[in-house]
Amino acid sequence: MGLHLPKNVHFVPAHPVAGTEHSGPDAGFAELFVNRWCILTPPEGTDRKAVDKLAAFWRLLGANVEKMSAEHHDLVLAITSHLPHLIAYTIVGTADEMQTGTRSEVLKFSAGGFRDFARSAASDPTMWRDVFLANKDAVLEMLGRFNEDVSLLTRAIRHGDGETLFNLFTRPRAIRRGIVTMGQDSAAADFGRPHTPLEPMPRPY
Amino acid sequence: MGLHLPKNVHFVPAHPVAGTEHSGPDAGFAELFVNRWCILTPPEGTDRKAVDKLAAFWRLLGANVEKMSAEHHDLVLAITSHLPHLIAYTIVGTADEMQTGTRSEVLKFSAGGFRDFARSAASDPTMWRDVFLANKDAVLEMLGRFNEDVSLLTRAIRHGDGETLFNLFTRPRAIRRGIVTMGQDSAAADFGRPHTPLEPMPRPY
Repeated sequence: MGLHLPKNVHFVPAHPVAGTEHSGPDAGFAELFVNRWCILTPPEGTDRKAVDKLAAFWRLLGANVEKMSAEHHDLVLAITSHLPHLIAYTIVGTADEMQTGTRSEVLKFSAGGFRDFARSAASDPTMWRDVFLANKDAVLEMLGRFNEDVSLLTRAIRHGDGETLFNLFTRPRAIRRGIVTMGQDSAAADFGRPHTPLEPMPRPY
Repeated sequence: MGLHLPKNVHFVPAHPVAGTEHSGPDAGFAELFVNRWCILTPPEGTDRKAVDKLAAFWRLLGANVEKMSAEHHDLVLAITSHLPHLIAYTIVGTADEMQTGTRSEVLKFSAGGFRDFARSAASDPTMWRDVFLANKDAVLEMLGRFNEDVSLLTRAIRHGDGETLFNLFTRPRAIRRGIVTMGQDSAAADFGRPHTPLEPMPRPY
């Protein structure tokens, strides 16, 4: 990349880990980057002043800044972002193809957990296609690990092994607590989703 | 079940498809069932007046009521609730076991999509263990379909097949739209999560 730039222009790749299921300028808002992390991956030999200037820019937008190699970025994001999106796309697709149970039933009963996946799966298909084409190796590695873990759970279900299930279901709670403690998610139940108020009851019952 | 009850007591199983990652009486709130669906699965021959009374009860709590067989319930919930929870537990567990990338990195960069999975995976382990032990057949069936679809996507990534990826990523958007249209989720970006305000900038920049 540096080869194609004039000497006074510096290339410092940056990835703010923030966003919603919407894309484009209209999807932005002033608080988008506040307390989110922005990853800088300056290639070796990048002008230090240029990197510092860019870090200061992101901090002014409210972001925390971390520097790492592009390779490490690709691996970490494969598990915290790419695999979750891939799985969300898959599971929503699986539901859509069901013969038993109409699409209408899937929509009605989505509040059982499915609707969270549907939000991720509503993200921009062009961007996500390009993510998976560009980060193929790290994503395939994470998919391999994920598949091993799915097999373990499948086996526990098939054999009625309640102890293994209970143990596997207990550990993730600490991760959720850590995410909230680090200010990366609301502690409110159900992400603090708005609730429809209960209408006054007809009387007499 | 009916065999063990006196003649004037009726058993009408009901499953309100509503809730958050929290359990127990303290996790309840007045709007919990508003516009959510409650499934009644009365066994054949159940007293009709008892079923109607229970349906009226749920409607007074704000719920919509649907009746179906217990078998159909198990199949529909396997895809809209049980599989999403199983996958969320798995993916959070996979991340927790990573050698490369510390847990701290997973937490920091969770806003890339992972944090949604972590909420589901913070649900009660005892209840979910019992769900998977009790609904084994339907869950294994859905896991089988899901695995086929993961394989298809894995293959597309491995072979750099952008067209297949794009097509698979485009269809789920209609599901998300349907869920919002049917009043089962907020249309707000990111579930309407609260945002930290941007602090006033220091001047001069």
